[in-house]
Amino acid sequence: MLDRIFNAKSVAIIGASKNETKRGFRAIKTLQEDGFEGKIFPVNPKEDSILGLHCYKTIRDIDDNIDVVLITTPAKTIPGILKDCGEKGVAGAVVIAGGFRELGEKGRKLETQVIDTAKSAGVRLIGPNTSGIMNFKSNMNLVGIRNAPKGVIALLCQSGNMALTLITEAIIRKHAGFTYYAGIGNESDIKFHEYLEFFRDDPDTKSILIYVEGMSEGRKFLQEAYKTTIHKPIILLKSGRSITGKKSAGSHTGSMAGMSEVAKAAYVRAGITVIENSDELFPVAETLSSLPPIKNNSVAILADGGGHATITADLLSDYGIKLPELSEKTKKALKQILPEAASVINPVDVAGGTDQNPSLFADCANIILKDQNVGGLLIVGLFGGYGIRFSESLVIEEEEAAHRIGRLVRKKKKPIIVHSLYSSYNSHPLELLRYYDITVHDSLDITCKCAEALSNYGEYLNSYHAKTNFVFSWRAKAKRAGKKIIANALQDNRYVLLEHEAKELIKLHGAPVSLNRIATSETEAVNLARGIEEKVVMKIVSPDILHKSDANGVKLNLESEDEIKAAYREIIKNAKIYKHDADIHGVLVSPMSASGLEVIVGTKIDDQFGPVIMYGLGGIMVEVMKDVTFWVLPISPRSARRMLDDTRSSIILDGIRGQAGYDKKSMKKLLLMCSDLIESYPEIEEMDLNPVILYQEGLDVVDARIILKK
Amino acid sequence: MLDRIFNAKSVAIIGASKNETKRGFRAIKTLQEDGFEGKIFPVNPKEDSILGLHCYKTIRDIDDNIDVVLITTPAKTIPGILKDCGEKGVAGAVVIAGGFRELGEKGRKLETQVIDTAKSAGVRLIGPNTSGIMNFKSNMNLVGIRNAPKGVIALLCQSGNMALTLITEAIIRKHAGFTYYAGIGNESDIKFHEYLEFFRDDPDTKSILIYVEGMSEGRKFLQEAYKTTIHKPIILLKSGRSITGKKSAGSHTGSMAGMSEVAKAAYVRAGITVIENSDELFPVAETLSSLPPIKNNSVAILADGGGHATITADLLSDYGIKLPELSEKTKKALKQILPEAASVINPVDVAGGTDQNPSLFADCANIILKDQNVGGLLIVGLFGGYGIRFSESLVIEEEEAAHRIGRLVRKKKKPIIVHSLYSSYNSHPLELLRYYDITVHDSLDITCKCAEALSNYGEYLNSYHAKTNFVFSWRAKAKRAGKKIIANALQDNRYVLLEHEAKELIKLHGAPVSLNRIATSETEAVNLARGIEEKVVMKIVSPDILHKSDANGVKLNLESEDEIKAAYREIIKNAKIYKHDADIHGVLVSPMSASGLEVIVGTKIDDQFGPVIMYGLGGIMVEVMKDVTFWVLPISPRSARRMLDDTRSSIILDGIRGQAGYDKKSMKKLLLMCSDLIESYPEIEEMDLNPVILYQEGLDVVDARIILKK
Repeated sequence: MLDRIFNAKSVAIIGASKNETKRGFRAIKTLQEDGFEGKIFPVNPKEDSILGLHCYKTIRDIDDNIDVVLITTPAKTIPGILKDCGEKGVAGAVVIAGGFRELGEKGRKLETQVIDTAKSAGVRLIGPNTSGIMNFKSNMNLVGIRNAPKGVIALLCQSGNMALTLITEAIIRKHAGFTYYAGIGNESDIKFHEYLEFFRDDPDTKSILIYVEGMSEGRKFLQEAYKTTIHKPIILLKSGRSITGKKSAGSHTGSMAGMSEVAKAAYVRAGITVIENSDELFPVAETLSSLPPIKNNSVAILADGGGHATITADLLSDYGIKLPELSEKTKKALKQILPEAASVINPVDVAGGTDQNPSLFADCANIILKDQNVGGLLIVGLFGGYGIRFSESLVIEEEEAAHRIGRLVRKKKKPIIVHSLYSSYNSHPLELLRYYDITVHDSLDITCKCAEALSNYGEYLNSYHAKTNFVFSWRAKAKRAGKKIIANALQDNRYVLLEHEAKELIKLHGAPVSLNRIATSETEAVNLARGIEEKVVMKIVSPDILHKSDANGVKLNLESEDEIKAAYREIIKNAKIYKHDADIHGVLVSPMSASGLEVIVGTKIDDQFGPVIMYGLGGIMVEVMKDVTFWVLPISPRSARRMLDDTRSSIILDGIRGQAGYDKKSMKKLLLMCSDLIESYPEIEEMDLNPVILYQEGLDVVDARIILKK
Repeated sequence: MLDRIFNAKSVAIIGASKNETKRGFRAIKTLQEDGFEGKIFPVNPKEDSILGLHCYKTIRDIDDNIDVVLITTPAKTIPGILKDCGEKGVAGAVVIAGGFRELGEKGRKLETQVIDTAKSAGVRLIGPNTSGIMNFKSNMNLVGIRNAPKGVIALLCQSGNMALTLITEAIIRKHAGFTYYAGIGNESDIKFHEYLEFFRDDPDTKSILIYVEGMSEGRKFLQEAYKTTIHKPIILLKSGRSITGKKSAGSHTGSMAGMSEVAKAAYVRAGITVIENSDELFPVAETLSSLPPIKNNSVAILADGGGHATITADLLSDYGIKLPELSEKTKKALKQILPEAASVINPVDVAGGTDQNPSLFADCANIILKDQNVGGLLIVGLFGGYGIRFSESLVIEEEEAAHRIGRLVRKKKKPIIVHSLYSSYNSHPLELLRYYDITVHDSLDITCKCAEALSNYGEYLNSYHAKTNFVFSWRAKAKRAGKKIIANALQDNRYVLLEHEAKELIKLHGAPVSLNRIATSETEAVNLARGIEEKVVMKIVSPDILHKSDANGVKLNLESEDEIKAAYREIIKNAKIYKHDADIHGVLVSPMSASGLEVIVGTKIDDQFGPVIMYGLGGIMVEVMKDVTFWVLPISPRSARRMLDDTRSSIILDGIRGQAGYDKKSMKKLLLMCSDLIESYPEIEEMDLNPVILYQEGLDVVDARIILKK
């Protein structure tokens, strides 16, 4: 169906107009001027002909197949039009109009009506509130942005202005262009992942560039993305990460933006190149669609000046890219062709060696790329501008060098990225580089970001785990006793399990939980404590008191009978002060845990991605250091391992400065247990195990909190 | 002297040449073509005239005052020429030649000779290894970069290519330009801070843009910077922060780059706007030199599309800039002129309202800047391109809006920064904005960075502490007993104080240090332990064992007599295994500290900035979380407070999630004590107090390490 839409042979314009300022006029004119290969049918009951084309009263009057209609009329007219489209067998309707859910309840109702009508009419909906779609091959331009270059990038945007931004950039950069464009709009019918599938299967599309504020079916998108990125890169910018950002995203697209850390982690796991700065979005897409990935995270720098070399080295090292030592053979070969003052370590600085002879750049590049240690090369500085800066006669040598550099990339299958001060000038040598699909940038920052993207993508392809789906199922099973714990709570209208219930539930599934018994009298508390070797901790148990500390309902480090009795009394008293009619089940008596490393494990149901899990440094450090990592559930043993490795604190787990490490195996087991648990009990909305105390051997879940879905 | 150099009335070119490819030819041609206002004297014994000017055999033959000479001849000729210059009373010599310390020992010797000659001749040296200097007002172009725009920014660069980069950017951006340029080169004679002083005193210079890899007299620079930034902004990029970066900086300028965190902290403290990404360097300088600072860290966004608004809100919020709620009055006024679909919260989204009428931008800007909550405004999207994108007729309205927006900034003294997709197009409305000194950017990232810079600078000016110098002295005094500790160690040829010596020293100055006694037998250890209430810790004391843990020389948590005796035996045994002939002074017996928050305090002598102090989270977290902050010593009580506040972990000190906080007052006292200590004992090279255990009341310095200068 999407194929018939994007490769439409005929387009009808509903709301066609003779008024030159109207979209219904400009749409037709654009199609004509851009040379759309298919047929164009204006539809407007009041006109006979527009721009030399016969104008139809309704779409039903057209005596031909219609693949796509562009509807430029207001929101309230849409349902009627869609019915006509259904009768006519139209594949897709592009609905420009806004005024739906982004305007509140009334708009939301209209939107639902539109979706329902489209569904029963069998018409797929692009938008509403979309800027349109484009097929750059057939010149089907239903957006109105002109002069966009053709190329290999498919573009998927949740903002018309961002589409305009990216296309404008493509025009200015004079290299890469597009296969298709789709404006997501309100994503009411056709979803992100459906567009993605279509672009994946299109043989002309080499990379997919996405701007997203929030998606409605993130889990399906991840699955499709995972299947895509092994074949072609996806480059994505997610905005709306700030609260204020969310406010604006909400007002515009009507979809709530998700929590940014979760989204970012999910996208990265699926092999997507996630971009944070919008300046980098197009250049990275351009680079990933035209250059081979870097396979060993190692890059060499070739510079004609110290400043650029130094800054580039700084940036690459910030990105964690290695600047490998060049081999003796490489250094020797470089020394032979460069002046004495040149530096032949990495970065290589030609020290004026190219001033009279810029073709040396190609010689150096050739020598450097031969080096086994080098996975890619950045040329930074003035290349392409020697003819402009010094003497016009140098252009010929630069051109020759450009040819050789271009062929080198093809031969060696290692990328070369070029930074040039003269990238925005008319420079034939730089045009030649672009002809060979070498990307040229005027920004060192962006040059290095492109290197990082090629390196990360190379690493992802190396580590790609072909055997699993991204979103899968272990078919984990609930236990009867576990179901009962949850059922009991729900029966009491409680949506938060009591601490001992939560602990019982995870213990059922094998998590190491310290002993938990409830005392309902001072004497019982003393008796329970007697069975515990360590000092004890006592906590209030009440469905009315969820934040036990706030109610002064926790006492630590208790040992003597007197202490325990006094603690019991105080806890009960404090609970009643906190809430005079609190339903008190008793006081939990547990052993104090030995000290170890405090970590946190949490799960939640994310709006966009469904169940997700978080792991990281726990205790007070959670909020201070924010050293946490996320994964979409369920997870595999391999993912559990990667989660541990992805935190900054992983070096503590491994044992820092000769100190003993912590039991990573048990930690991984606990993560997998949580994964199973969430799969087994779909009633769970959120779970917090915090702190979990990790030891050299084993671990202890000290507090657990499980919230059920309402 | 620098005034006579930069405003030279006469320039002699040593090594003048008729060969068009030589610097000695091009230099004269550039001065002539650029229209240098002073006199030009070519010097070359072999020529009679060059480019229509009489050529002199030597500089002594010139029958006129010479302010500046440009020396284009090789390194080895320099000393002789400098002597002549001295006799002639030349103020400054610009030495282009490289081949000095950057080439190793031989070059270093030549450089010393050059410096000495210059000094005795009374000639100030620019370079060597410099790209030259420029005065844009008098057209004294001794660099050769052409078409650089005149303006209000003084440029100081440690890389010729970076100067070329920044000047090229100025040309492309068509707004800001320069007053002076100085290429630092090897910084052999005239230092960064001297150039800075000159630029500060120049009334035409409104901001100072610096690219630095490493400076030789950082402390003096900081002092001058501190005096400067209250009057005009300094914008600085420091490169060479990566190790590999350092390697390249080293090879190029011969100066070692300093540790990046120290440098960054020092610069920021002095009110300098420190830039990390080179793309941002020029636009931020442009913005700070032409727009008023933001006074309340609060910015409004005015956008003509959701995508740009959302991304901008994200970026500002990442920078910690507030997006204040607009007042009811403001919202009402906006609603009156904007369409229903517009969003009048902040970000304001005109929702197509400007498509037919871009002059609405000025109306909105006027309403928004009137709002007391708003300190500055970003206009993001298509402004300046309505005439290009939609209809040429809209240009007139855009121009009118540009005039009004420009006048608004002058009237309200609040900045407006504009992002426009069309910033690189020929757009008269954007040219008008630039005429009013409003900066226009094609990058959202850079637009937001400029807002951050204006906001930070505004905050700095608000908090400027006029009463102190940046680098000052408390005239702290050493104590006799302290001097003796150090003298004893030096007498024994020891450059690391033993733990108990270090602790004694800081205790002398009032630091809370737990009891430390040395036992030289098992029995003595037991006796010492008896006087301690807590469990004890025992550590080896030996000048031959600096890393006590590595030698298994530390035993913790000891209580019984047997434990203590056994520990003593083992520690001594392990010490001998570690180093069979180790000089063992005994075993230190101290009380175990109660648990608390572990922090670290350290000092060192930085290559560039002299004594500096570090404070942050201690223990294993130092290396993992790198939550540390720096200050140049000595510090004031106010700086000590700011250091505590500047760490991420400061919220732990204040008491997080209802937990009790820690004793910040004692912590500040300890920082000030360290400051005094380093001032009092110039023999100290490095000091590490780690961990310091911080309590709700008081603190305990658990381990101390002091290294003396060799």
